[in-house]
Amino acid sequence: MVREIFRQLPQENVVYFGDTGRFPYGTRSPDAIRHFSLQAANFLLEQKVKLIVVACNTASAQALGFLEKKVETSILGVILPGAKKAVASSRNRRIGIIGTEATVASGSYPEAIAQLDSQVKVFSYPCPLFVALAEEGYLKKKASFLIAQDYLSPLKKLQVDTLILGCTHFPLLKPIIQKVMGPKVTLTDAAESVAGETKELLAQLGLLNQAGAGGKHKFFVSDFPEKFKRLSRSFLRCQLDSVQKIEINRY
Amino acid sequence: MVREIFRQLPQENVVYFGDTGRFPYGTRSPDAIRHFSLQAANFLLEQKVKLIVVACNTASAQALGFLEKKVETSILGVILPGAKKAVASSRNRRIGIIGTEATVASGSYPEAIAQLDSQVKVFSYPCPLFVALAEEGYLKKKASFLIAQDYLSPLKKLQVDTLILGCTHFPLLKPIIQKVMGPKVTLTDAAESVAGETKELLAQLGLLNQAGAGGKHKFFVSDFPEKFKRLSRSFLRCQLDSVQKIEINRY
Repeated sequence: MVREIFRQLPQENVVYFGDTGRFPYGTRSPDAIRHFSLQAANFLLEQKVKLIVVACNTASAQALGFLEKKVETSILGVILPGAKKAVASSRNRRIGIIGTEATVASGSYPEAIAQLDSQVKVFSYPCPLFVALAEEGYLKKKASFLIAQDYLSPLKKLQVDTLILGCTHFPLLKPIIQKVMGPKVTLTDAAESVAGETKELLAQLGLLNQAGAGGKHKFFVSDFPEKFKRLSRSFLRCQLDSVQKIEINRY
Repeated sequence: MVREIFRQLPQENVVYFGDTGRFPYGTRSPDAIRHFSLQAANFLLEQKVKLIVVACNTASAQALGFLEKKVETSILGVILPGAKKAVASSRNRRIGIIGTEATVASGSYPEAIAQLDSQVKVFSYPCPLFVALAEEGYLKKKASFLIAQDYLSPLKKLQVDTLILGCTHFPLLKPIIQKVMGPKVTLTDAAESVAGETKELLAQLGLLNQAGAGGKHKFFVSDFPEKFKRLSRSFLRCQLDSVQKIEINRY
C-alpha cells in the first residue's frame, strides 16, 4: 500500500508507523484496536501530517469511525476504496471478503458494499492463519494451499466472481488464493485504489504538494526496527535506510 | 502448566495473568519481552503474590535474569526445569529444542543444558508457525503435519532422542510432532516439572500453604476476556467463571 502511495505521490513526504510491538491486530478486541489506532494517530499528528491513511484493514474496519470523532485531521481508511473496487469489478453481484477475525466481525465491508449497491450479495470469511503464513514466507507451499482450501472452499461454492483480499498481508498469498478460487474469480485489494483516493482527497482539500518529486519517507515502529528492515524487503519491496523505534505508549 | 500447578498445589491461591493484548511474544525483540514481562510481574506483585512462575518459555528465555534483578520476590522460570527433564530423559545425549524465534535466539536452553551436563549435544530450531496453528486449532490437519515436517526434518536427521517442546503452545501439537519425529524420540515439556519445582521452592522458602485444598484461582488478561474464556477450554482444559481485564500499561 505504502509503495503504491510512494509511486502515485512521489512529491509527498510520508511518515509511516508500524505497530510491530503489538502486531497482529486481527485477533484483538475492538477496544484494543481502537486504543492502539488512536495512539498511532496521535504519534502521526505529532509529526504534523496533513492526512492519515489507516493502511490496515483491521484498524480501518474497527476504528475508523472512532478515529474520525477523536481526530480533526482528515483520515482515509481502506474499507470504502476496497469495497468500491470490488463492486466495480463484480458482474454477478456476488462478492466474497476474506480478512482477519476482527475485520470480518466488524461487518464494515458488507456495510460499505450495501451503501454502494444494495443488490450485491456479500459473503465474509475470516482467514486468521493467512497472516502468520505470509509473515513466515509460507507463500507457495503445499501446506498454505491446503489451509487456503479449508478457508476458501465455502466461498468458491457460493460462486462469488470477486474476492476482496481484506488484509494487507493477503496479496502475498495471491497465487495460492487464485489457484483455489479458480481463474474466473477476480481478486481485488485496496492498495492501488487507496493511493488514488489519497491523491484525490489531498487535491480536494487543496493540500496536494505541487512539486514534481522529491518526497521524503520516514519509517517508525514500536519494536524491533532491525527485523522490520529485514521484512520490509518482501512487504514493501524496498530497502529502507533508517527505521526508528518509538515508545508508542507515550501517545 | 497452570492446570498442573492447580493439580499439584490444590491448597494455593493462584493469580494468573495472560498478556492477551500483546501476545505473541515469540516474534518480539528482547527489549520488548523484558519490558512486557516486568509489567506483568509488577501487576502480580500488586496482588501480593509470594512467588512468580514465568510460565512462558519466551519470557523465561529472554527476561528471567532481568526480572530477578528488578524484583525481590522469588521467580521461577520454565527453562531450567525443562532442561533438567530433558537431560534426565536423554540416553544418547543428543537433545533437540523447538521454540519461538525469541526463545531459540536467546540460547537459554543450550546454556542451561550445558550447566547440567557439558557432554550433551544440543540442537535448537525455531518453529514460529506452530504458535498460530495451535491457536487456530490446526492440531491434526495435514497442513500442520507438512509444516512440522519442514521444521523438524533437520532435527530428525540429527538423531536426537529427546525433543524439548519449548513453548507452552507446542504440547497441543504433540501427536503431529511425535508422528514426524518417530516413536523413539521422547517429547518433553516443562509443565509437570515446573509444578513440582514450584512446590519444592515454596517448601524451601517455608511458604507452602499447609491447608489441604481450597485454593482460589483468579484470572486476569490485558485484552479480550471473553475470547480468553472461550480458548481456555482447549488450553487450560477448564471452564473459567471469571476473567478480568486489566490495563497493563499502568504497571
